[in-house]
Amino acid sequence: MKIVLIGSGNVASHLGKAFAAYGYQIIQVYSFTKANADALAFGFTAALATDSLAQIRTDGDLYILAVSDTAIPTIVEALPADLVGLVVHCSGATDTAILKKFANSGVIYPPQSISKNITLQISEIPFCLEGNSPKNLALLQEIMSPIAPHCIPCDSKQRLILHIGAVFVNNFSNLLFQCAYELLEQYNLPFELLKPIIIETANKVQQEAPRDVQTGPARRNDEITINKHLDFLSQDKEKAEIYQLLTAQIIKRNK
Amino acid sequence: MKIVLIGSGNVASHLGKAFAAYGYQIIQVYSFTKANADALAFGFTAALATDSLAQIRTDGDLYILAVSDTAIPTIVEALPADLVGLVVHCSGATDTAILKKFANSGVIYPPQSISKNITLQISEIPFCLEGNSPKNLALLQEIMSPIAPHCIPCDSKQRLILHIGAVFVNNFSNLLFQCAYELLEQYNLPFELLKPIIIETANKVQQEAPRDVQTGPARRNDEITINKHLDFLSQDKEKAEIYQLLTAQIIKRNK
Repeated sequence: MKIVLIGSGNVASHLGKAFAAYGYQIIQVYSFTKANADALAFGFTAALATDSLAQIRTDGDLYILAVSDTAIPTIVEALPADLVGLVVHCSGATDTAILKKFANSGVIYPPQSISKNITLQISEIPFCLEGNSPKNLALLQEIMSPIAPHCIPCDSKQRLILHIGAVFVNNFSNLLFQCAYELLEQYNLPFELLKPIIIETANKVQQEAPRDVQTGPARRNDEITINKHLDFLSQDKEKAEIYQLLTAQIIKRNK
Repeated sequence: MKIVLIGSGNVASHLGKAFAAYGYQIIQVYSFTKANADALAFGFTAALATDSLAQIRTDGDLYILAVSDTAIPTIVEALPADLVGLVVHCSGATDTAILKKFANSGVIYPPQSISKNITLQISEIPFCLEGNSPKNLALLQEIMSPIAPHCIPCDSKQRLILHIGAVFVNNFSNLLFQCAYELLEQYNLPFELLKPIIIETANKVQQEAPRDVQTGPARRNDEITINKHLDFLSQDKEKAEIYQLLTAQIIKRNK
């Protein structure tokens, strides 16, 4: 299995390392920035680095476009249409139609926030797989299964839903953490005080459905506490708006 | 140290066990429901159970009111005003004034969501301590420090802020998990797919400030993806409303 990594960011880096560790051959690493391509390629026995899309090798079995969503069209345009290898992107929100010039294409999308410097087991991450044919889906499953046992086939609509789900649980939760951080900071309280409850909140839904572990004043429809909180937040219109909207939705769900 | 536990719920149960393990004596457990008082008291060598507020012993050194916020006034009214022991509640949103009839009073508030059947180390939970005098605050610190080394003194306003912060990071995040659960369920996708990213999101803010690990379409101000998501959510007004509000606030923070 000869793999061309297009991109040198978090996803390219973690995937490349997992593939290489399993014994697949990373033959080339492309990055817009040569130094980044060099740095990643350096870790693989037989990989050449390039910053030229024209130099991308045509004998790969698998081309992984692990770049930002906005960079995908440029890369696709630059790649030769007659590539025989499988060309896949890793984006949650990008349609497969973008890869239609290639005979063999697909998607490997991890609904996970992958940071380069955080140790992370690729084997624990689920990947959503899509192929432009049943044969290519099967091929992707075969390629991915040794490094990522939690792969599932997923059509473009399901992938979009997962992407939206990931935005809710990751990006939006992190904004809530940020709101709490700001509140505590204003009153000289260390954010450390909330770190255990953040872990506990994430742990609880590993075993039980979120609706079954909902707690707090909104869950109890405890108007006295809710009003105390809103009264306090009246100095901070934006946080008050979040508080009101999310409280109303918890109350509604428990009616 | 002779302790009277008033309440038999999650907080009473975890605190009682930690105190007893350290060697404090739980002399009585009160619950509105006798069977619950019996069940908790059973675990302590010398504890008697009661469901009668009139029977509460007067020789305790510490009375812990670990009951729902709404039950606190009734309990306080029923307790004799001339108790010499320290009377504390565990509520984030209840003013200390509610305990003013007692000579010695205070608060031990854990900004944590404590579930009875989830194993949890009291020693890892921060507690916010407040006393009605410097002497009583010092006494509470002395009593708590062997079982909970992360105690900090905290006035009523700071406690309210922590409670609001806990609502944001716990109750509201859990609502976001629930939203994602509902979305996935509608399209036959298992919630399992998002469990790793939920853990990852919580882990990231243990080491870094939330603002430094914010990712996603709102963070990048990626209007194409945001519009794709909103277009999809147009069938689900409530989730669309959450999506719009939280996205706008992330964008604003990164301007």
